[in-house]
Amino acid sequence: MKYLSKPFRVDYSDTDQMGFMHHSNYLRFFEKARISWLRDLGISYKKMEADGIVMPVVSSSLIHIKPSFFDDLLVIQIQLSQIPKASLDFNYIVYNQNKELICKGTTRLAFLNSKTQKPVRCPSFLYNLFGE
Amino acid sequence: MKYLSKPFRVDYSDTDQMGFMHHSNYLRFFEKARISWLRDLGISYKKMEADGIVMPVVSSSLIHIKPSFFDDLLVIQIQLSQIPKASLDFNYIVYNQNKELICKGTTRLAFLNSKTQKPVRCPSFLYNLFGE
Amino acid sequence: MKYLSKPFRVDYSDTDQMGFMHHSNYLRFFEKARISWLRDLGISYKKMEADGIVMPVVSSSLIHIKPSFFDDLLVIQIQLSQIPKASLDFNYIVYNQNKELICKGTTRLAFLNSKTQKPVRCPSFLYNLFGE
Amino acid sequence: MKYLSKPFRVDYSDTDQMGFMHHSNYLRFFEKARISWLRDLGISYKKMEADGIVMPVVSSSLIHIKPSFFDDLLVIQIQLSQIPKASLDFNYIVYNQNKELICKGTTRLAFLNSKTQKPVRCPSFLYNLFGE
Repeated sequence: MKYLSKPFRVDYSDTDQMGFMHHSNYLRFFEKARISWLRDLGISYKKMEADGIVMPVVSSSLIHIKPSFFDDLLVIQIQLSQIPKASLDFNYIVYNQNKELICKGTTRLAFLNSKTQKPVRCPSFLYNLFGE
Repeated sequence: MKYLSKPFRVDYSDTDQMGFMHHSNYLRFFEKARISWLRDLGISYKKMEADGIVMPVVSSSLIHIKPSFFDDLLVIQIQLSQIPKASLDFNYIVYNQNKELICKGTTRLAFLNSKTQKPVRCPSFLYNLFGE
Repeated sequence: MKYLSKPFRVDYSDTDQMGFMHHSNYLRFFEKARISWLRDLGISYKKMEADGIVMPVVSSSLIHIKPSFFDDLLVIQIQLSQIPKASLDFNYIVYNQNKELICKGTTRLAFLNSKTQKPVRCPSFLYNLFGE
Repeated sequence: MKYLSKPFRVDYSDTDQMGFMHHSNYLRFFEKARISWLRDLGISYKKMEADGIVMPVVSSSLIHIKPSFFDDLLVIQIQLSQIPKASLDFNYIVYNQNKELICKGTTRLAFLNSKTQKPVRCPSFLYNLFGE
């Protein structure tokens, strides 16, 4: 399963004095993109948290091919990299408005009960969406 | 009552492409400074929240005199601007490592019950510290 | 002159452990909104910088009426508060998706020559847009 | 070669509504730590940039073992993972004030001429420090 995000703007506050988007912000952009995807699939991450499940990032990786700049419009292609069980694994590919490849990355999210902070299995509504 | 913070470093990620610390970060530095002050006075803001009181910022103001730069060490002088009642009001003056005046500001914090989100009065341990 | 921004999403990374958008982010949202306004008026702030003029924020103020939350969509109404001369002065009013008033604020921007860091007058193309 | 950073405080603004430090901030903490290490070795990253060399992060990875929380004091152990040539490669291990393992990570930094944005070799003063 794949998703192409709408374009996300690189804000002035995302830049650093090198004139590039600060590298830590790509993890924020990945998060924007995957929450958008879930929203488009009818899943509110906000409601999931309210219902007692949080999904912390437990690992991630990033490869930067080109810098991105203030005012760029970044489009993020996300793909599920395996059937969700104890974790939800995504791949990301980031392009700018000129279709240049900017960055690739991965994240692994765990499922935790927000009260006990203990791991739980992938909720069935997510498994049913992604699990086939 | 007054407090002079320890020096806080301007990190690379605090800069923007103008080469200055991004202006939004001064509010973060004010927050670091006032939480340090409370800590030095024996008050854990973390424990206050655990005990059910949150202190959101309800207003603030900033005047920027000079920019600050990556690697600068900013010292913040805080002063209580009035006896705490429904709010806790601070003034801030920020200096860099060359004792240049960088920024002045104010914040007003309210006291809320973290469950009901309703305003509450200044807790007595804070009033006793600051209220005379 | 007035402008109503498109809705800006409150991202997960904008929240703090109080469950609100961290107050420092409103200054970032103001910046997004005014750069959008300029863009809609045909002015690229990016190009202005490339042409040698930077516009640092020299003062600002914020009044928070209600908190905003993860996933909220904030719309910002901006107004020029006086004819631009040595500075560009804006007022901001922030509403959420339920048309609730969230926050009000002001910013003053100066015009600097990016090489000399000296103040310059409002560029004529901005004065012509805003100055009548 | 190894370095143990001084403790870095988790600020309120570093948290998210899960109550944890937002995962994107670990990359900022890694940056704080490696710039501190260079500083302790007598190398100003600020001066390197002024002298025309920038060091963008070209790849990174993170594994989160435990969350960190507001007010935590994080100590970061850094190690050079190979002799610097076209890149500078570090490993990071993050501990909290209770000596719990929080996070592990890696970053690869490239050397660029800041004017041409072209890759350059590791400057000799860095190679001499790290290269034996």
